[in-house]
Amino acid sequence: MDHAADPSHPRYRSLLMRHRLEIAAKKGMLADSALIAHGRGEAYDYLIGEQTIESADFATKVALRCLKEAKHPVLSLNGNVVALAGDEMLQLADLLDCPVEVNIFYRTPERMTALLSDLDERNKRLGLGVEILGANPDAEIPGLKGPRARCESKGILQSDVLLVPLEDGDRCQALVAMGKTVIVIDLNPLSRSSQTGTITIVNEVTRCIAEMVDGFDSDLPSRSDYVHEETLQAALDSIVNGMKDRFKTVE
Amino acid sequence: MDHAADPSHPRYRSLLMRHRLEIAAKKGMLADSALIAHGRGEAYDYLIGEQTIESADFATKVALRCLKEAKHPVLSLNGNVVALAGDEMLQLADLLDCPVEVNIFYRTPERMTALLSDLDERNKRLGLGVEILGANPDAEIPGLKGPRARCESKGILQSDVLLVPLEDGDRCQALVAMGKTVIVIDLNPLSRSSQTGTITIVNEVTRCIAEMVDGFDSDLPSRSDYVHEETLQAALDSIVNGMKDRFKTVE
Repeated sequence: MDHAADPSHPRYRSLLMRHRLEIAAKKGMLADSALIAHGRGEAYDYLIGEQTIESADFATKVALRCLKEAKHPVLSLNGNVVALAGDEMLQLADLLDCPVEVNIFYRTPERMTALLSDLDERNKRLGLGVEILGANPDAEIPGLKGPRARCESKGILQSDVLLVPLEDGDRCQALVAMGKTVIVIDLNPLSRSSQTGTITIVNEVTRCIAEMVDGFDSDLPSRSDYVHEETLQAALDSIVNGMKDRFKTVE
Repeated sequence: MDHAADPSHPRYRSLLMRHRLEIAAKKGMLADSALIAHGRGEAYDYLIGEQTIESADFATKVALRCLKEAKHPVLSLNGNVVALAGDEMLQLADLLDCPVEVNIFYRTPERMTALLSDLDERNKRLGLGVEILGANPDAEIPGLKGPRARCESKGILQSDVLLVPLEDGDRCQALVAMGKTVIVIDLNPLSRSSQTGTITIVNEVTRCIAEMVDGFDSDLPSRSDYVHEETLQAALDSIVNGMKDRFKTVE
């Protein structure tokens, strides 16, 4: 991780993200599968050129407008999201004046405690007063079984617009079935979450949330301008064309 | 890892590979970046349909023939390769009557000891007497700096045909510059190792080595039938077409 301190290094960002995951792993915030999932993300990010593609930029703006116009927006956080973009998520929640909710697939008391206390520290360090939910799950997402169904009634359960970065396919489907507007951030346009989300942003989570924060007060397109299938197709085309272009460069 | 015991589970293989990595991590065999690297591999394997594509099958057979006809073939092993395909690599080395050499990018005495003792155990369990090199590096690969240059004179240094699965781009390039026939196994046809290798097999390492062992006595094409650029292009086409096809299915 020698290079993580040098922003001019071409792999600075990638090394910084790995460094954040290492710290989170040491704090007990991550599931066993977290690093492998991150590696999959790295591969897809490489394929889209480690940049925000046009279709993702548009989807991000539409999503931001939905969140701003929502009655009860909620930002759902899992281990990797807290590790990679915990600060950015809290900043966005502060701007939206909405709660975040820790909602992890492999729920254990230890991981929940580690994540909640990490978020508390970030909240204080950033001088924010964002409401952090997840400690007292008193409700269930219909159609899911076991700990992964649990959520808070004043958080995810009552939300009308929900941001779920890096979400599991089953849970994404269950949330959409509840009639919510589900905004997915996922680097694989073929994943079940990407397919089933109401609005899908094919982008790296930290980049995406930072852009929402930066563009919070800009003019935003309306939801009716978003076409789900076209957005996913555009992301796929970017990947496919990017691979072909890169292959030519390498040759 | 509940599903790892049930071979009928659709994700059995993927879970089994993760299970092998978990065990290796506990034994201190892996670098910090090992799981992330595996995740990247998983993404590419998904894109080629988690199967041996035709061009990879051909490259595997050509590579096997090169190894069989070599004067001093050597199989180079790093942490992930030992974890995922340690048994298969020893079986192949036994058939070829050649040494394996542990050759890791982030070389520490602890990791070397963990890997060498794991291979010793496997050797005994399989009833094989494969020569395991790496403990006494007395030579260097020209053009590389630091611990990653080190190798054994009776192993990698004198090899004429070298199998390097999941190899770093710099080292791959340095080995090719020594005039060796370098056989790369890598799931990303765009990686620098894939590009610079003499023969590149775009496949998952365990699947590839198992096929070399199974097909050891079959008829094999000659090296002159292998065209490097066409092989990489075919792998890229598989990925690109596979993505398009899968997108149609999901829609």
